[in-house]
Amino acid sequence: MKLTKENIESLDKLYRTNLVNSLSGFKSANLIGTVSKEGKTNLAIFSSVIHVGANPPALGFLMRPVSVERHTYTNIKETNHFTINHINKEMFKQAHQTSARYDKDVSEFDACGLTPEFTKTLQVPYVKESKIKIGLRFVEEQEIKFNGTIFIVGEIVELILPEEIISKDGYVDIEKAGTIAISGLDSYHVTKLIARLAYAKPGVEPKEF
Amino acid sequence: MKLTKENIESLDKLYRTNLVNSLSGFKSANLIGTVSKEGKTNLAIFSSVIHVGANPPALGFLMRPVSVERHTYTNIKETNHFTINHINKEMFKQAHQTSARYDKDVSEFDACGLTPEFTKTLQVPYVKESKIKIGLRFVEEQEIKFNGTIFIVGEIVELILPEEIISKDGYVDIEKAGTIAISGLDSYHVTKLIARLAYAKPGVEPKEF
Repeated sequence: MKLTKENIESLDKLYRTNLVNSLSGFKSANLIGTVSKEGKTNLAIFSSVIHVGANPPALGFLMRPVSVERHTYTNIKETNHFTINHINKEMFKQAHQTSARYDKDVSEFDACGLTPEFTKTLQVPYVKESKIKIGLRFVEEQEIKFNGTIFIVGEIVELILPEEIISKDGYVDIEKAGTIAISGLDSYHVTKLIARLAYAKPGVEPKEF
Repeated sequence: MKLTKENIESLDKLYRTNLVNSLSGFKSANLIGTVSKEGKTNLAIFSSVIHVGANPPALGFLMRPVSVERHTYTNIKETNHFTINHINKEMFKQAHQTSARYDKDVSEFDACGLTPEFTKTLQVPYVKESKIKIGLRFVEEQEIKFNGTIFIVGEIVELILPEEIISKDGYVDIEKAGTIAISGLDSYHVTKLIARLAYAKPGVEPKEF
């Protein structure tokens, strides 16, 4: 079927939200951990984390407009740091629950049954139940004028992961770590490797590793 | 194991590239179709497409710095339009092959064995082999000053997909469409649904649909 912009805009709001949120493809499943300047921890699920650069190592994510109170955003601006923690199949329900609208004085760690974990490097909480945990320093925000969303960039300052899932060439087997993928607003998926493909060159057939 | 920023920066370049590219979690797998003002089609694989907004419907993706020639970027700026096409398991090798460095006068459609498809609405090519195809109008670019990457935003103007994969509530079963996920630079994965979870509310246990 074919839908125009006008067709999409005339859809029921919830239907349109579900539809358009499905269109980007599979999404990363991460929990972002922060802390307020008063020391109150916060945890929120995000499906928009993407790779920004390998050198210097950096990740980014898109936030909804800050017209309503966004604890993650406020905390990042207050403390300059945040953590990104992969969601795995053992704790995806607790991770999903962090999307409920808790008051600022409630920590999603307590409310959702996840455990804050701290290192000597950073004051911001990691998620103990995650197997891949990344500590970041806030470096930049760019507002998308089109709809007021904000792209946040963080430089990786600490990385915690099981050594046995790192291949000889640096590739991390996130599937082995149980990391899952999201589709739409609320759908959680495990993955199964098809293949790794060698660096592509013109005139050479795609080769599996 | 724990790595600091200094540990990561001292790694071998290829090792670091593989490692850091694995950290964002699973990535969307899309082909971006464009055309130059001379009418030459171009196709390139991107793993950074994310949801930007449902109303107006918009998607975005991050591009590497334009310090070297980027055909996708040049074409989008010339024609103001592009397409996003989901990669499925039947054609992921052809999709991967589009990452080879072809000259500007070579169309990746021809070189990689994929078929351009046009509609009456847009002058830019869709990928016939994709089951979910999205036509977009370029609306904004934001440069990430940290490393010169560019976040491109497009408003959805046309959407082509099989009616039978759309649920009653608008959720699109992209798994049923064979859409795959990427990890790292070069790893392709099929998915298997664990569950859809209901809208989260404080004090209510996470419920499956």
